[in-house]
Formats: sequence, C-alpha cells, structure tokens
Amino acid sequence: MSYYETFTRLHQGPAPLLLANCWDVQSAKAMEAAGYPAIGFSSYALSTALGYEDGENLPFDLLVRMTKRVTETIHVPFTVDMEGGFSRSIDDLLQNIDQVHDAGAAGINLEDTIAGTSRTFQPAKEFAKTIEAVANHLSSTNRKLFLNIRTDAFLLDIPTALAETLTRMSIYGSAGADGIFVPGITGPGDIQRVVNATNLPVNVMAIPGLPTPATLQQLGVKRISMGPFLFTKVYTEKDLSPIL
Amino acid sequence: MSYYETFTRLHQGPAPLLLANCWDVQSAKAMEAAGYPAIGFSSYALSTALGYEDGENLPFDLLVRMTKRVTETIHVPFTVDMEGGFSRSIDDLLQNIDQVHDAGAAGINLEDTIAGTSRTFQPAKEFAKTIEAVANHLSSTNRKLFLNIRTDAFLLDIPTALAETLTRMSIYGSAGADGIFVPGITGPGDIQRVVNATNLPVNVMAIPGLPTPATLQQLGVKRISMGPFLFTKVYTEKDLSPIL
Repeated sequence: MSYYETFTRLHQGPAPLLLANCWDVQSAKAMEAAGYPAIGFSSYALSTALGYEDGENLPFDLLVRMTKRVTETIHVPFTVDMEGGFSRSIDDLLQNIDQVHDAGAAGINLEDTIAGTSRTFQPAKEFAKTIEAVANHLSSTNRKLFLNIRTDAFLLDIPTALAETLTRMSIYGSAGADGIFVPGITGPGDIQRVVNATNLPVNVMAIPGLPTPATLQQLGVKRISMGPFLFTKVYTEKDLSPIL
Repeated sequence: MSYYETFTRLHQGPAPLLLANCWDVQSAKAMEAAGYPAIGFSSYALSTALGYEDGENLPFDLLVRMTKRVTETIHVPFTVDMEGGFSRSIDDLLQNIDQVHDAGAAGINLEDTIAGTSRTFQPAKEFAKTIEAVANHLSSTNRKLFLNIRTDAFLLDIPTALAETLTRMSIYGSAGADGIFVPGITGPGDIQRVVNATNLPVNVMAIPGLPTPATLQQLGVKRISMGPFLFTKVYTEKDLSPIL
C-alpha cells in the first residue's frame, strides 16, 4: 500500500489519527520512534528552526529539500504544511505542489488565510478555485496527495467563527478537499456541528482547552495534529545547560 | 569590538570559554538565552538534524545558509565546524572558508582527519600546508577568523595518542593555528602536557570522564565545547509524547 493510501485510511478509523508535527529529520525520526503513525511538518516549527518567520518566508527550495530528506528517512506517511501554497499564482502553486509531491509527501495542508503583517482570509470562492485547480491537476497528472484544507476562522478568533467555518467547509468540500482542518476550535458543541456538517474527515489541533481524545473520538474527529507545540517544548534551558 | 575580537578574547580569560554547539537557529537562540558567551555548529548535530551523515555529506550550501541565518539572529560570536574543509583541493577549501566567513562566522574548526567509511588522519605536514594556506589567505584578504585546529588522535583512540597530539600541535601552531582542539582527551595528566606544550588556547570537549571546569581551569584549558551532546539530549521521547 502506498503512503498516500495508508495516510488516507488513517483518517477512516474509529479513533482519530494522532499526527506529530516535526521541523527537521531528527525530530521526524524521534516521532516515528515514539510511535506516531503519521508525521507532518509544522510550517511554524520548520520556519522557526531554520531562522525564518512563519508565513511563507522560508525559501521554498528548503521546504522541498527538507521534505525529501525526511521522506527518505522515515517509514510512515508524511504530510507537508504548505501554508497558502507559497504563491498567489495558481500555475506557480501547482508547480510547488508537484515539487512537494515528488519529494515524497503523501499529503499537504493548504490554508485559506495569507500571513502578512496580519493574517487575512482569502475570499472563500477564490480559495475554492485554488482547491479545484489543485484537485484537477493532481488527478490529471496522476499524483496522489491527501489534500487537507485548513480554514482559519477560529484561529482568527472572529465572532462568527463557527458560521464562517461551516460556510467555507461546504465550499471547500465541493471544490475537492479530502479533509478539513479547523485549528483553534475547542468547544465540543462547535466541533460536533463541524463534524455533522461534512462527510470529510475533520482535523483539530491539540491546544489547551481541547476535549480529551476519547471525547474527540465520540464527536467524530478523525485527526488531531500536535501543531507547533512539540517544537516549543523541546528546546528547553534545562536540556541546554552545560554538560559538565 | 567585532565578534572575531570578542571571540578571540574569550579564549584569554582565566576561566575556560563554555561553547555550546547548536544545529539550527532555534537551538542557537535558546543557547544564547541560556547565557553561553559563544556558540558554534556541531557538524554532527547539524548534519543529523538535516538528515545527512556527518563527514562532509551535508550539502555545503546548506552549511553556509544556516550559518548566515544563525549569525543574523544571535548576538554572540559564532563559530562553524567545517570538518576537513569540505574539499581536498586547497583552492576550493579557501573558497569554502570565504563563504563561511562572509556568512558571519567569527571562527571555524578544521580537523586533521577525513571521515569516510572509517575516520583517517591526514599526514601532519600535508594538513599543516592547508593551515598555512588558510592563515595566509585570511591575512591577505583581510578576513578575520579564529582558526581552531582540531587534532583527532584521542578521538581515534590510538595507543600513541598523547605523543601524536603533541607532535601535531607543534606543527599546526607553526603553520598558523589560533587554537588547538583535542576532543576525546580526559586525563588530567594528558591535558596538562598538552597545555604546557603550547602558547595557544587549548580546547577540550565535554564528554564523560572530563575533569570539572574548576580543574580544567587549573590545568589551563581555555575552551570547553559541548560537542553533539546537547543535541542528543534534546529530542527525547518524553518531550515528543502527544500533548492532549
């Protein structure tokens, strides 16, 4: 079975897939050893580790090269956080996705906000055109990638976060998303509404206030991403004190 | 004062310079925050983090790019472990050193072994020619780099380690080394002999069995490098367990 198929099936079990987000080859290896069934880059963690601000400031060739070294090293499916796709031109974005696919990724995340001085939404229908172009391109070039679409209303903390999420999810699902990622959502009622509104696997991020995995399973969540939190835990003063 | 001058002076105090060896920008920042007065790459840690075997398998452009991002981020002197120089041609090696200097390094390490299927010594006089070429080149192009020369007899664990080290130190000192790095040395008697044999600052690596910093200071050691050991401490299973 290909990593793409394995990865897709990991979204179909009764229990949510626990996905660890790494930032280099060593962290990916350690996460594989720790038993995670799939691993992905966190754009924040990877960018910060390499000295770039999150928000597509990481040189794209570094993202591709790091993807290749990780996928050549680990033995579980790997997914790449591509933020907004590293281009506002659809042609360039498709080329970027090809590079990430060809570097061995089994999936990607694409998000509907653009990180600038402040993070702003792309209009839903405009972003849906991107999703549709990506899905058609992958299909016509026979490339398989689990297309996880991230929608950021909860992250932006707007008052109409749930309504905006439900609207966007529906549009993105029709456009060809394979999964919906709603980082920042924590309320069980909100999560239930989101899960009930789609046939696609719903992905949440492990942040303070999130229900337990058992509750998330009952609510029908299919993937829980660790986000940047393993990265921020690791480089502690205690571990870096002189060894003497 | 330039980072080069600061770094040079840090080798002249009564207490040894404690130098932390990082592998990315985040670890460098954390080490700066932890109070180390100077930081350097460990080639093992950097290569492993990025998914390459130590021993000049890291693409050289990555070493330069990572050096640049680290030096643009931290506010203490930074030194780069250049292994054997990433080329057996002196012209190419000088160009490599220029790139590392121009990326903001205040110092470099060069070692007298070549890592292959097994690590082997370069003949002392041949390596001395390299040192001389480097020192002359830096001087004639007005580039300042603290040239720390590593000699590996203790690391190779050969029976004549002390004698070989003393012979090589003398040759390397005459060739233009600014400091001598003897990783693997731990015996106080051996360390004393090494320190007494040179006017150059002597650098040891923090490995199990090394005397305490107070003893090392009494012995006249001027620099203690953390080597790859902070790196190997950091990516622990405990820190990578799911956050839920």
